[in-house]
Amino acid sequence: MFLTQVFKKGLLATLSLIMCTQACAASVQLVEKKRFEIENFKTFGGKTIKQVQVGWESYGTLNQAKDNVVLITHYFSATSHAAGKYHPDDATPGYWNAIIGPGKAIDTDKYFVLSVDTLANLNAYDPNVITTGPASINPDTGKHYGLTFPVVTIRDFVNVQKTLLESLGVTKLHAVVGGSMGSMQALDWATAYPEWVPRMISVIGSGQSDAWTTALLEKWAVPIQLDANWKSGDYYNSTPPSQGLTAALMFITQDALTPTFFNKTGEGIGYFALEDAPLNDIRQQHSIVKWLKERAQSRAKLMDANHLLYLVRASQLYMAGHSGDMKQALSSVKAKSLFLPSFNDLLLMPYLAKDAANSLEQHHKNTTYRELTGDLGHLNGVVGIEQAASDISAFLADK
Amino acid sequence: MFLTQVFKKGLLATLSLIMCTQACAASVQLVEKKRFEIENFKTFGGKTIKQVQVGWESYGTLNQAKDNVVLITHYFSATSHAAGKYHPDDATPGYWNAIIGPGKAIDTDKYFVLSVDTLANLNAYDPNVITTGPASINPDTGKHYGLTFPVVTIRDFVNVQKTLLESLGVTKLHAVVGGSMGSMQALDWATAYPEWVPRMISVIGSGQSDAWTTALLEKWAVPIQLDANWKSGDYYNSTPPSQGLTAALMFITQDALTPTFFNKTGEGIGYFALEDAPLNDIRQQHSIVKWLKERAQSRAKLMDANHLLYLVRASQLYMAGHSGDMKQALSSVKAKSLFLPSFNDLLLMPYLAKDAANSLEQHHKNTTYRELTGDLGHLNGVVGIEQAASDISAFLADK
Repeated sequence: MFLTQVFKKGLLATLSLIMCTQACAASVQLVEKKRFEIENFKTFGGKTIKQVQVGWESYGTLNQAKDNVVLITHYFSATSHAAGKYHPDDATPGYWNAIIGPGKAIDTDKYFVLSVDTLANLNAYDPNVITTGPASINPDTGKHYGLTFPVVTIRDFVNVQKTLLESLGVTKLHAVVGGSMGSMQALDWATAYPEWVPRMISVIGSGQSDAWTTALLEKWAVPIQLDANWKSGDYYNSTPPSQGLTAALMFITQDALTPTFFNKTGEGIGYFALEDAPLNDIRQQHSIVKWLKERAQSRAKLMDANHLLYLVRASQLYMAGHSGDMKQALSSVKAKSLFLPSFNDLLLMPYLAKDAANSLEQHHKNTTYRELTGDLGHLNGVVGIEQAASDISAFLADK
Repeated sequence: MFLTQVFKKGLLATLSLIMCTQACAASVQLVEKKRFEIENFKTFGGKTIKQVQVGWESYGTLNQAKDNVVLITHYFSATSHAAGKYHPDDATPGYWNAIIGPGKAIDTDKYFVLSVDTLANLNAYDPNVITTGPASINPDTGKHYGLTFPVVTIRDFVNVQKTLLESLGVTKLHAVVGGSMGSMQALDWATAYPEWVPRMISVIGSGQSDAWTTALLEKWAVPIQLDANWKSGDYYNSTPPSQGLTAALMFITQDALTPTFFNKTGEGIGYFALEDAPLNDIRQQHSIVKWLKERAQSRAKLMDANHLLYLVRASQLYMAGHSGDMKQALSSVKAKSLFLPSFNDLLLMPYLAKDAANSLEQHHKNTTYRELTGDLGHLNGVVGIEQAASDISAFLADK
């Protein structure tokens, strides 16, 4: 039992992204969240959102030429907290702390590394997140937007970032680097604003959402929409659809991992096909399901269900360049590109990154494709990113 | 538009399992559903179900020695209608008609081929299905069982089949052959009743439900349980949870197929990442999602939501031998085994069949493992089964 507990805690810590020993804690940089506002933001879909506010944070120093910016675009369930800690006693640092910091692959002694909370960020109730989305108050009505919030796209996230960078006097990036939904932003950046982007790194990414991925993402929306507390998104003065949101997070966790990881986890928690409780009572569940649910319930507390629906939609509508033709749009790219999909990714399967890389090669662009390894599937690109440290470092240093 | 329609119809027909031309219609055997009753059935979990009724059908003739029985065990969303037609004008024959019939791989000129509706069969309202499950009336109360129906297992499906066979005077099979959830029954047959089973064919199958598969199957239960009309399973005198059931069927369809198939389908229905409707309104959905939903809504009409929950549970509790140890239990197998997983199966991945085959080999059993191909993933074992016809035929003929 004790060993089971230890093993379980070990796995939970792995999923909490990075275990930090005392030795590493000392070297973690402290960061602070900043606020950026856009008075009137016009969406890709042609709607206007007033008083858009987003949070952002940075690591390292902007040089005088303002040409050392590495923009980090975040994944679906993440925030702009890519590295460092807000307080020395934070349990964990930002999700890519293994590769962002002084002397690390994305070296903050050289680069001004910056990251921005997306619109409709999932973690709407995290005190360290600033975002504008359906859970925000519409200044015109004084009420929560709910589903009256306009559909937003990956391009909108990019445009918010660009407006923020321009406000800092930046006119060109050193590189844009993103994982998963962040990879969508990174490649869209390189396609939409080629003069800005000399280097692009797509981690566990894709060039567009195909029919398969669109249907897969829809599964995450389904439990929220079925929850009676969802009320077509109008739940801000009543009980929120926590059961639906929890179920969506359970789905996301499984989609982002692998049988190998789940089966090891199952061993740790004592999973057994013929468990007594689910055999004796249809209302009971297997230990692996309870494990997933407990984890999801805990994560759901700082998240907003409508925001999840909007991020699903943004991801479904994704096509690099946001024109009618991804392959054609990629002809405008000027960046050198590095694709780092995960070989056993069941969420954004490697063929998606391969298709984008192949299209760039057909346009004679400088493109490198290398698959990440590990037992974690999609999360090889988050928890397992350190394996690509030297590739990323060399790619960024290259002229 | 016309071509799109034709293509769409073609795909729908493929998914309707087998397109039958006039030429083949003439050769399709006519079959009839029969009823079998067990006065008191004791479940693996130790509960008693009174007046269990199941439907069954057969193709070919039982010989005098009663030793030419090939038992076909059906998959999750199927029924005992494995081959033939009930009426000459039925749109499609049984799901494995390509390999069951006179002169076919499972040759009804030689074998008496028999199949039985499972307990809690999903298609509870199909007039050609006879099953006992939560939608049945409990003879003790005169009311629908709902969730008071005992949890049933793969072993219970096997035991119902065995009782039926014994009632026909059969004491030994020629072979048991099943796909997916049917493969679970087939291998459990060979493990629990080795004297009965000289030959076992597992198509798109597994030896036990591991933590990954158990969590994956739970996803199918989630939308039903979230549907406000489900009412903890007590919906038989009110509106049934059709939205939840439809969503579950959408999940099942995607899990049973592949990106390759979905993306071809998407082309056929005009799927486009940047479709206007979902860009302009969060309430709208992409064409691929609508396609899945329409198909699921149509299938849901003859299905019962609680039955789906019970089949999920039976599949989650599956372990060949239903003892504490699958690998050890397989030592009792006397059958020669043929495993036919699908190389690109995302639902029951090939490693599951491989694990079972490896365990049998470690016990020095006669075991053959061969992967099915095709674009259909899990459904290569249903729609694409004809590719294995000669393997199956030779396996059954072998002494």
